[in-house]
Amino acid sequence: MPETHNSSHPISASTSTRSALGCQLLVDLHCCDRALLNDVTFVRKQLLEAARQAGATVIGETFHSFSPCGVTGTLSLQESHLSIHTWPEHQYAAVDIFTCGDSVDPWCAYELLKAAFEAERGSAMEIHRGRPDVL
Amino acid sequence: MPETHNSSHPISASTSTRSALGCQLLVDLHCCDRALLNDVTFVRKQLLEAARQAGATVIGETFHSFSPCGVTGTLSLQESHLSIHTWPEHQYAAVDIFTCGDSVDPWCAYELLKAAFEAERGSAMEIHRGRPDVL
Repeated sequence: MPETHNSSHPISASTSTRSALGCQLLVDLHCCDRALLNDVTFVRKQLLEAARQAGATVIGETFHSFSPCGVTGTLSLQESHLSIHTWPEHQYAAVDIFTCGDSVDPWCAYELLKAAFEAERGSAMEIHRGRPDVL
Repeated sequence: MPETHNSSHPISASTSTRSALGCQLLVDLHCCDRALLNDVTFVRKQLLEAARQAGATVIGETFHSFSPCGVTGTLSLQESHLSIHTWPEHQYAAVDIFTCGDSVDPWCAYELLKAAFEAERGSAMEIHRGRPDVL
């Protein structure tokens, strides 16, 4: 199967936005486990698992552990990208799940990561990128 | 200087949001030059230059050219990340500029990329991540 940006609608898009090129979830995870947020090996494993369960194909990755604390991770996907930045001192992580095409479910990745980091509160803002009415 | 997530305010934050952990620009570039959007070497060069001029430090990168067209690029930054997904067939690019700390100016990166891809229209939505009132 040729690799390509798939321009069709994301799974969770409403009827009016079905043909947006991309669907992006801006995810805030609050009251997470501090140790998990600071463990770059754990963070990497969870992001890869979230991509896999969401149906995405990973084509590149970068993970980095900061001193004194914090982790940054990005996965490049055939269907766009998945990123995380953690602030263990605030028990907080900012996650972006950017997908295109109808083969990936970003909400699946959201639920997995919320559970993985033991977030007591999670929220996601869904943004449609490249909406047909403004292209 | 030790590398760290800097939790202080982003340059362009208003007084009320100064202590948000991160500042994210969701950038839409419309009516860009098709050939430039499809040239992965050019895209990489411009993202690296945007990061440099904005004052960011690159700690990792992934760039990929799709068939039949389209480019995905991500830069991991000491100050978060910079990503781009291009749809040359729509003359459109979706760019994310996620920064933390007060040493990086995301708007500088926005202006550089808008000019580089010869976008006739550009817009940016500024989102403050990890706002102190919800941490």
